[in-house]
Order: sequence, then structure tokens, then C-alpha cells
Amino acid sequence: MIIYTKDEIYRHIQLNHETIQVIDDAFTSLETKNVAMPPIMRVDVPEHNGEVDVKSAYVEGIEMFAIKVSSGFFNNYKLGLPSGNGLMMLINSVTGQPESLLLDNGYLTDIRTAAAGAVAANYLASENARTAGVIGAGSQARYQLKALKLMRDIEQVTVYGPTEKRVREFAEEMEKDLGMKVTIASSPEQVVTESDVVITTTPSKKPVIKAEWLHPGLHITAMGSDAEEKQELEAGILEKADLFVCDVREQSKRLGELHHASDSDAMFAKAVELGEITSGKRQGRTHDDQITVCDLTGTGVQDTAIAVHAYNILKNYKAGSSIGKRNQLTQLT
Amino acid sequence: MIIYTKDEIYRHIQLNHETIQVIDDAFTSLETKNVAMPPIMRVDVPEHNGEVDVKSAYVEGIEMFAIKVSSGFFNNYKLGLPSGNGLMMLINSVTGQPESLLLDNGYLTDIRTAAAGAVAANYLASENARTAGVIGAGSQARYQLKALKLMRDIEQVTVYGPTEKRVREFAEEMEKDLGMKVTIASSPEQVVTESDVVITTTPSKKPVIKAEWLHPGLHITAMGSDAEEKQELEAGILEKADLFVCDVREQSKRLGELHHASDSDAMFAKAVELGEITSGKRQGRTHDDQITVCDLTGTGVQDTAIAVHAYNILKNYKAGSSIGKRNQLTQLT
Repeated sequence: MIIYTKDEIYRHIQLNHETIQVIDDAFTSLETKNVAMPPIMRVDVPEHNGEVDVKSAYVEGIEMFAIKVSSGFFNNYKLGLPSGNGLMMLINSVTGQPESLLLDNGYLTDIRTAAAGAVAANYLASENARTAGVIGAGSQARYQLKALKLMRDIEQVTVYGPTEKRVREFAEEMEKDLGMKVTIASSPEQVVTESDVVITTTPSKKPVIKAEWLHPGLHITAMGSDAEEKQELEAGILEKADLFVCDVREQSKRLGELHHASDSDAMFAKAVELGEITSGKRQGRTHDDQITVCDLTGTGVQDTAIAVHAYNILKNYKAGSSIGKRNQLTQLT
Repeated sequence: MIIYTKDEIYRHIQLNHETIQVIDDAFTSLETKNVAMPPIMRVDVPEHNGEVDVKSAYVEGIEMFAIKVSSGFFNNYKLGLPSGNGLMMLINSVTGQPESLLLDNGYLTDIRTAAAGAVAANYLASENARTAGVIGAGSQARYQLKALKLMRDIEQVTVYGPTEKRVREFAEEMEKDLGMKVTIASSPEQVVTESDVVITTTPSKKPVIKAEWLHPGLHITAMGSDAEEKQELEAGILEKADLFVCDVREQSKRLGELHHASDSDAMFAKAVELGEITSGKRQGRTHDDQITVCDLTGTGVQDTAIAVHAYNILKNYKAGSSIGKRNQLTQLT
């Protein structure tokens, strides 16, 4: 059992074209390989406003697969702690033995989530997209914007968030990091109106984007909704879109934007999975004027893909704490 | 994040009256406290004849809870490796931070499973039970017998298993360990006929005990069935029993003996949960001539109970590998 700390993982694994391709391939594997991806396991801790999710996926032929534990404890700010925590465990596919523990504290989840946004943008945003809008100003908003920038020649960014200070910090930081103008919008409507690509990264329980704001050529990626009660897009948006894409149909219907569709069976039938597009079975955007929408709820196959990728990079560096000598692992783990 | 190896856990945690009480209390908590116990998450690895289960349960008011990963890879014997593997992770209930990793390799699962058998025997077997029968001769059969011995004055044991060599080894080892006669039976029927308490610990996919063998005063604990296709008891046994008990009704119906009942809705209504008995809401055995049956499928609340118990004992010893200094944990995990 080799253990890697967050510092080691942070030093060697970044959001870049390589990790985006890893996630692109992960979505493709959902179409081209046998994948065992059980529903998300969730443990609620209502006393402390907390929840723990467990995700996993085994992909046929892969040497290891991940079991990811991630938590959100939303009273942690009172203790001066971040709300999110998490780690990934890699299990040997042949023997079932635990091979490695990645104490990433949610960093690899941030990377694989942003990479999924990049994959969506790559197939669904117009090639000519130059303006990006972000609703929400947290850490995933930052990652998503950086991911989008890797896929399209974005020249201007508009951002909206409910907390002025957070939005101002976001704008300043992104202007510096990305070397481009970041405008603070006065409303979500302004963001949508002024952008070719819009990314929503909120924990909202009611729609933040209205169907009447959609315009030709727009692409929206909705990252936030990953629970029954969460919703970022007005239901009419799914119907109005020329192409509605999601990571996993069943999951979007249970936890994502599809859950709120006025005729969810009809939308379910109309929805395209991202893997169908990355694998070439279905087309993404076919002309500049289409309106495209992608709902990402987060999948175990992304976790397995990023964890195996990280492990393969990390094992080439002298790092990690080995619990017991390597040849005693069978005894120990 | 404090990590304990199997050797450390093995040295300090044993199957005894204390651990049995811990599991008794765990079942009671299912009745008396708010418990979030999601369905078992299962990842199948059919290529390698393997499966990984994830179990968890949060008990209101508890300081930590476990997420347990356990695997069974049934081609491992070809590699000279045990089929089972596993570890438990303890999550802080207030912050969601990972507190400890127990690299127990399935040992704590063995203990808590045997302890559940002891709890069942304590409430359901006749006080006058003197003969025990075991069907199956693996490691859980050994633990179960030791657990039963802690609860009843067993004087003679009968064992049946399909592989002569394994059964002979079992008998020799148990005679030595428990200091009593162990008879090798020629059939499961002989085991049932000659025993006051019978424990089945097989991975059987068809019944190993027939209803016609039941006799007044008998108690059966069926440990083996924990998947849709597994079954140890002929369906008629559930109906014929004066009292049918299971650990969790919904789980027994999905994965255990209730799954095979001829009228599973009626049996579901008739079934009593072990926690109803440990908590005093319902009675266990009320007279010596009753026939009682208990189906144990294994629950996350047992895992949380044994993991917290083990952690509390282990932290009092100078042991464990701390990943990072204690005050840097927020950064690291």
C-alpha cells in the first residue's frame, strides 16, 4: 500500500491537455467497454450539515480502479476548515488488494471535474467562441474557466456571484492568472447575454438561468446540480436546446438537471451522453448557431481514470509512504 | 490520518464479550437512534471473478463512522493469495475529515460477523443448548464457533463440509482450541439432527438445510447468504420457524434468505430484526421447544461499531503511522 499526500499529488498532477484527454477517454470507455459503475453511495450526517459520497467504477481490462470518498461538511467554516475533504483508494483489478491511497483532499476531483467541462466545451462549444461567462465564484469556477481556456481562444470573461467580495477576488485572480479582462456582471442574465459559453458552478436549489435568455450559438455547461434538490437551469432550457448532453443519463435524471425536466421521460430519450459523442457514435455541435447544453453530475469512471493516471505518474517519482515493505504487502493490506 | 496495520489491530482487538457487547449495542442503535445506513455499494469485476463491497453507517451522536471496503477475488488461490481483502476508514462525524485507516485485511469484519452470530445465539438459542453444528469449514466457521462458545456451554460440536481435508483440519484445530470433541458428520442432515444450535457459513447457491430436518428447540444462524443468488436454507424453513429474525429486513429481502421465501411479503411482515430484540422491543426465544432462525447478511452499523471500538483501543497504545504531523492534518487529508 503506497500512500501519496496532497503535496506530492499537487506537485505532479495538473489540469492540462493530457488530463483532459484522460477524461475524454474515460467517457469513451462508457460506450466502448464493459464498465461496472454502481450508483453513488451517500451517507448523510444531518446533525453536522454534512454528507459523504462514495463513487467507483471498474473498466474492463484496466489494471486498477478507484474507490473515492468525498465529503462536504458545510458547518466547517465555523471551525476555520474547508467544507470539502476526500481521498481515493486504488484497488488492484486482478487481486482486489488495495494498491495505493491518494490523500488528495479533493484535488483530483477538482481536476477531473474541470476536465469534464473541457471535454464538453471541446465537442459542444462553437469553435469561434471568444467570450465566456461564469456563474458562481468558488474554486470549481476557477478550474472550469482554466479548463475552457485550454480548449477555446477565450478573450473576455464575465462573472456573476451573489457575494460581491468573492466575485471581486475571483475577477482579480483570474485576470492575473489568465491575462485577460474579467467583467463583473450585475445579473446572471448579463452573463448569459454577453457570453458564447456559460458555465454554472453553484449549489443552487432554484434555476439561475432562464430559458428566455438563450441565444443562438450559446453553449452552457451546468456543473452544480448533483443532488435531487439542486437545480441551475430552468426546465424549459433542456427542451429549447438543440442538443442536450449529460455525463450519465440515469444519474442526470436522478440527481441532475434532467430530474427537473417537465417531461423527463421525453427529455431522457432525447438526451445524449457525453461518451456517445467522445466515442464518435453521435455528433456534438454541427453548426455555429446551435444552442447546446451539457449537465455534468460527476461519475466514478472519471475518478478511476484520474486516479490511475495520477498513480502512474507518481510511481515514477521517489515519493509516497510505503506501509510495510513492498514484499510484505500481502500480509499488511 | 493515523494508519494501523493488521498486526497492530490483531494484537489489540479480539473476539470476546466486550466486542460482542459492542455489536449488540450496534444492533440496538438501529432501533433507538437515527442511523444513516445506505444500501451496500458493489463493484463487480467479472473478468477476475472478483467483487468489491462498500458498506457504511452513520449513527447519530457518534464521533466517527466507518466506510469499509471489502473484496472477494475468487481466483486469488491460483496466485497463492487469500481471496478476501479489506480495510476500514474512519471519518470524523463533525468535519468529514478522514481520521484513521485500519488496514485490517478483513480481520475486523471476521470479528464483527462472529460477534453478530454470538448476539443472535444469546437471544435465540436455548439456554440449555449443549451441542453445536457447523456447516462449512472456513475461517468464519471457526470464528462463529468460538463466538457461540462464549455465549452457551457447548459440550460437543459436529461439522460438515464438502472437502474432507478442510473439514479434518477444522475438527483438529477446533478440538485443540476449544478443548472439546468435534465430530465430522457425513451429511448436513446429521449436523442438524444432532445439534441444538446450527451455524451455516457457506457460499452455497442452493439450500444446504431442509425444512424436514428441523426439530423442537433448534436454533439456526445462517451466515452465508449475502447476494441475490446465494441461499443456505430451504424456503420452507422460514415459514416453519416459530421466530424468524434477520439483521436488516430490507437487506435480507434483497440479498439474504428472505429473498427466496415463497411468500416474501408475508415473511417480510413476520420477520423480526435483531435490533428489535437487543433493544428489548421484541422478545427472542421464550421457551426451550421453539424453533428459531436468524439470517445475517452483514451491516454497515456493525462496521462502524467495531471500527470505532478498535480505534479507541488502538489510540491508547503507541502505534500507528501518522501521515504528516498531527497539526498539519487539515492540509494533508
